[in-house]
Amino acid sequence: MMHRHLLPHIGNLPQGLRNAITDVAGVTVGHHTLAAQDVQTGVTVVRPHAGDPFRDRVPAAAAVLNGFGKSVGLLQIEELGVLETPIALTNTFSVPAVATAQIRQCMAANPETGRSLPTVNPLVFECNDGFLNDIQRMAITEQHYLQACAQAGVDVEEGSVGAGRGMSSFGLKGGIGTASRRARVMANTEYTVGALVLANYGRLPQLVLAGHALGPQLATRLATSQKSLAAEPEKGSIILLIATDAPLDARQLRRLALRAGAGLARTGSVFGHGSGDIALAFSTAYTVPQQSNRPMPTTAMLHDGLIDALFQAVSDSTEQAIIHALWGACAVTGRDGHHRIALADLLHDWPATSHPLTPSASSS
Amino acid sequence: MMHRHLLPHIGNLPQGLRNAITDVAGVTVGHHTLAAQDVQTGVTVVRPHAGDPFRDRVPAAAAVLNGFGKSVGLLQIEELGVLETPIALTNTFSVPAVATAQIRQCMAANPETGRSLPTVNPLVFECNDGFLNDIQRMAITEQHYLQACAQAGVDVEEGSVGAGRGMSSFGLKGGIGTASRRARVMANTEYTVGALVLANYGRLPQLVLAGHALGPQLATRLATSQKSLAAEPEKGSIILLIATDAPLDARQLRRLALRAGAGLARTGSVFGHGSGDIALAFSTAYTVPQQSNRPMPTTAMLHDGLIDALFQAVSDSTEQAIIHALWGACAVTGRDGHHRIALADLLHDWPATSHPLTPSASSS
Amino acid sequence: MMHRHLLPHIGNLPQGLRNAITDVAGVTVGHHTLAAQDVQTGVTVVRPHAGDPFRDRVPAAAAVLNGFGKSVGLLQIEELGVLETPIALTNTFSVPAVATAQIRQCMAANPETGRSLPTVNPLVFECNDGFLNDIQRMAITEQHYLQACAQAGVDVEEGSVGAGRGMSSFGLKGGIGTASRRARVMANTEYTVGALVLANYGRLPQLVLAGHALGPQLATRLATSQKSLAAEPEKGSIILLIATDAPLDARQLRRLALRAGAGLARTGSVFGHGSGDIALAFSTAYTVPQQSNRPMPTTAMLHDGLIDALFQAVSDSTEQAIIHALWGACAVTGRDGHHRIALADLLHDWPATSHPLTPSASSS
Amino acid sequence: MMHRHLLPHIGNLPQGLRNAITDVAGVTVGHHTLAAQDVQTGVTVVRPHAGDPFRDRVPAAAAVLNGFGKSVGLLQIEELGVLETPIALTNTFSVPAVATAQIRQCMAANPETGRSLPTVNPLVFECNDGFLNDIQRMAITEQHYLQACAQAGVDVEEGSVGAGRGMSSFGLKGGIGTASRRARVMANTEYTVGALVLANYGRLPQLVLAGHALGPQLATRLATSQKSLAAEPEKGSIILLIATDAPLDARQLRRLALRAGAGLARTGSVFGHGSGDIALAFSTAYTVPQQSNRPMPTTAMLHDGLIDALFQAVSDSTEQAIIHALWGACAVTGRDGHHRIALADLLHDWPATSHPLTPSASSS
Repeated sequence: MMHRHLLPHIGNLPQGLRNAITDVAGVTVGHHTLAAQDVQTGVTVVRPHAGDPFRDRVPAAAAVLNGFGKSVGLLQIEELGVLETPIALTNTFSVPAVATAQIRQCMAANPETGRSLPTVNPLVFECNDGFLNDIQRMAITEQHYLQACAQAGVDVEEGSVGAGRGMSSFGLKGGIGTASRRARVMANTEYTVGALVLANYGRLPQLVLAGHALGPQLATRLATSQKSLAAEPEKGSIILLIATDAPLDARQLRRLALRAGAGLARTGSVFGHGSGDIALAFSTAYTVPQQSNRPMPTTAMLHDGLIDALFQAVSDSTEQAIIHALWGACAVTGRDGHHRIALADLLHDWPATSHPLTPSASSS
Repeated sequence: MMHRHLLPHIGNLPQGLRNAITDVAGVTVGHHTLAAQDVQTGVTVVRPHAGDPFRDRVPAAAAVLNGFGKSVGLLQIEELGVLETPIALTNTFSVPAVATAQIRQCMAANPETGRSLPTVNPLVFECNDGFLNDIQRMAITEQHYLQACAQAGVDVEEGSVGAGRGMSSFGLKGGIGTASRRARVMANTEYTVGALVLANYGRLPQLVLAGHALGPQLATRLATSQKSLAAEPEKGSIILLIATDAPLDARQLRRLALRAGAGLARTGSVFGHGSGDIALAFSTAYTVPQQSNRPMPTTAMLHDGLIDALFQAVSDSTEQAIIHALWGACAVTGRDGHHRIALADLLHDWPATSHPLTPSASSS
Repeated sequence: MMHRHLLPHIGNLPQGLRNAITDVAGVTVGHHTLAAQDVQTGVTVVRPHAGDPFRDRVPAAAAVLNGFGKSVGLLQIEELGVLETPIALTNTFSVPAVATAQIRQCMAANPETGRSLPTVNPLVFECNDGFLNDIQRMAITEQHYLQACAQAGVDVEEGSVGAGRGMSSFGLKGGIGTASRRARVMANTEYTVGALVLANYGRLPQLVLAGHALGPQLATRLATSQKSLAAEPEKGSIILLIATDAPLDARQLRRLALRAGAGLARTGSVFGHGSGDIALAFSTAYTVPQQSNRPMPTTAMLHDGLIDALFQAVSDSTEQAIIHALWGACAVTGRDGHHRIALADLLHDWPATSHPLTPSASSS
Repeated sequence: MMHRHLLPHIGNLPQGLRNAITDVAGVTVGHHTLAAQDVQTGVTVVRPHAGDPFRDRVPAAAAVLNGFGKSVGLLQIEELGVLETPIALTNTFSVPAVATAQIRQCMAANPETGRSLPTVNPLVFECNDGFLNDIQRMAITEQHYLQACAQAGVDVEEGSVGAGRGMSSFGLKGGIGTASRRARVMANTEYTVGALVLANYGRLPQLVLAGHALGPQLATRLATSQKSLAAEPEKGSIILLIATDAPLDARQLRRLALRAGAGLARTGSVFGHGSGDIALAFSTAYTVPQQSNRPMPTTAMLHDGLIDALFQAVSDSTEQAIIHALWGACAVTGRDGHHRIALADLLHDWPATSHPLTPSASSS
């Protein structure tokens, strides 16, 4: 299998050190994976900083590209412009379990939560992994969430891990992918943008990889059974998380979040009806204190007239993260013997001279 | 205690038979109440029709007056314009338990939920009852939700019941209230609008009852300890549910939902920062099939030019429902001995000649 | 006629020196009025500061309570969170003329507008004064707008002036009103909130004045012809402008703007279908430079947990401004002999002991 | 120059007869072009049906991808879900003139407009053509708008015509483009989707044409002066109009409008800060009467579960329309001798074997 760093580089902006969301300083990612027969699922956690986000809240905003989804927490983020828990990803029916885990986690750190302190706003995103995973079992527990938190670090495993374990994309195996870009907004000022996606969307005929409309060709390599599956209407979703160290307020972060949709569209998505396509962007440049008697930040925000490089970075890192999700995913057999083939397996004997996923390929 | 039907009638529109949300044909309401020492909480369920709302979905839309809240399910309603579960109300930290209960309820009725059928969108509203209830115990279980569903009927108990058990409002005991109005939109066409509120908002100095700014006077009747409590910043919320049999689409229902805010404002609310003030309106005039191969409704919607009577009915029934919630509530002692006095108790020896809550009083 | 300062004071917050939007330092208001037979209309301008708002833009956000309206400029304010022209008010069909005037005004001050500089975003609000004014004449010209700008100062004329000249409200004469409140957010920190309204909404039966549901009683004092007019469906609107010196970003200003709706609702409005009810809030605490090479502000925003006093101030000053608009309006006869009576005239022989608009009256 | 029908066909859906928005029955398009030295601008009109849209209103909804724009009319469309004038496109500073023209047009057809009838909601979209056109002259008059209306038909001229006369895109000549797709939503049910764009966006390095990232290569063919221009920050915009004969309500049309953004993104756009990227979708399947005493439609809407083919058609026809706009544009020299080269000129001697705009090219 080709090394990840040999894959095509989307766009002209340089990537960060790890080409991962964790290139935004302070951001860490953890997974907990369940992979046993009919249970193929997990939890992924993105922590915006090492502290307690309930006390030191992080500016954030969402853009809903298609709201056919059951993620929780966006109502309050829209009103207050901050998130106050780690960001959790899991399967649709495990959202309540993870939300409960976040409430308990907050109570453990802040015993007055819901009493003299306000209640906490769980933030849990989801996709439906019901094809590979017996989603009706609601296999995720509080412990799984806490283990994902505890395991969080700067090295991000991709593909069929964490919340990505049971996900499908374009009729192939989907899952977790990440990438980053560095954006120069002024002569001496550069910021990092990182993306992490949970890819569970797309029908194979639509797939565009690094500019190549590969879907139809790839379909010819699928067995008949897989082929019909891959052409079915979408029941998936994609969650698109964007982190940046640029100083932006919630209004500006909403602008960033929407640009994840541009990266998504370049892979062939039309934000399908059945696909809950939701983007969230947050900044690590400052925090907002939970308590009103602590001082508010005096950070100067980035001028909107300088934001275009960040928009490009969001789009490019999102598209790159999706490629990483597909490329990084290994095949999985799960519920009732359902099977998803991996993109890498499908491409492994592709003629080198015309291989679509090589650095040279992206320069067409 | 004055009978409910002797309370002032808000506005000029006639009320329905029960002066309750259940005057909208097909709508039923059920409660399950937990009242034992530190646990003073519950679940309330509003069922839009007697069938399975997952199969026969109900047009609906929300208006968020203040999004400091943790209700779940609004994301998808905004996109698709339908609700697909009973509407549940509970305390903030029990939202996940009730959401899980709704998922299981849907799976029980539709075994392919999340497999060949889509996942289901739980719809759970919440307020924080942490003053009277030990919210950290997360006392609500799936069984409690199912019992509330099973108990649903057309007679609606008000006050300190169901989700209203532990709620506070204006420093007094809050809870569940309901009311209805009949609105004539054309010479021969009349529709019913019903409201049901979960009132957990407001500081006593703000209180306006049926046009009377009673807050300051009532405050003089409170013991010192209660008085200071009643003046504290809001940590509450109010959920405002609106039902109608008028044929409206989601866009129009969003217009209706917003008018619940007009009724709310008349009681003295300024949609306080800490109060998650959320309105949801639904119509029973038609349903939308879950399956795309079933026929879509051909109902003619109401012309927007005829909608004003419904706006008035929403505002008036909302204000009336809030009065019913306060009036219907009995005093409760809960967590750590915290106590909320009832409005009726506070008013019981008010001089009859100047009693603010009599039918004549409202004609000022 | 009772002096304005003898009218009831809404709420418990103190008013500013002038009880006007111009109590927010730097804000000025100007009118230009046309009053000749069938032409009864005008322009009102609110200037957020004495400088050029295109170069030094003012943070702003709108809340649309009912979008049946033709105001222009909100699209860009929603995206960028700033306004960049004076705020103009006029009649519906004169919006284009005033927008053109604003473009020319900006070009005069910034000759490269639309060339090396971006285009400018006109911000013009409107109500339909077509009952008293021959709106089809489109009588307002660029000069009228410039004269209103030139005339701007801290003393605000109210009632049937400027854009308010031809407006009707509750079947009576409407127009311009203003008020202010001072809000203490912390022990040593107080901010000013000012409201200015263009009142052209409401049916008489709905009217609530300072808590008194006076509509029905007032109707009995109308001549038959006026009475039927006053009960007609709304074709009006109300524009609600909120200024503050509190340091707030666009997200927070949107929260403020929505609270103007609470004040509006207390006067009997249910945000009628035909009424374009739109609120805009702006802050004078800092400006955002048009050019990206100028430094961005480092102002610490107000913590959301301290915002409730501002919400109250917005609601109270809005309600007060509406009372001022109605009270300040003089009767006008206009197009085709159409006539609107003034509230003050209707009340002038009201028995003093039960007069609804006296300071004591508001304490009910 | 290659014939338009030899250009690559985007996607797998068949095009309509004219591959134009006018393939949606009843829709017509007219242009009026001003092309004299410094004045290079115009008006384009899309008429949704042959009747009076004020009397028979058309369901419509917008999606704002980037709200840095001065288009007017969207506020009311968001509230009421209908448009009530022809859709007009022009330059930024001519919006007021065209809005006035629409008001007069409506008054001419409906003499009681703004009197016993409501006011009319002008709907005018704009881009800034200030590079080629002396936008400060505000050259467009009421007559130009009326001529565009009068000239409307089913044959749509593309490129540097009408509102597209002075527009630039990717540092090249932009303008008007159109395309259509036929979408099968069920075995026996097919609908038409048409797109018309006013393309004035994009920096050359970003350009992707039918999947080919041609920007950098094309840049090498530009003269130095043009090259630096083409790399400047965006001051443009794109307006994306979508018509369909599918029976959809306003909520569903908003979903369609957003998918124009997916087509736009595939051309390299990241919805740049300075670019007002706004999409509007309307349906011709039914109309809504202005008067409330006329019967409302009883059309069954399309089930959302069948909408994906329309989403694909919107994305594909939008991308195709953009290609047509670029390909159809002829070079223009305008204000101060500013010049934009045409894509077709730039490509005319491209080696046939690797020509990016040939039908075979799109199959990569």
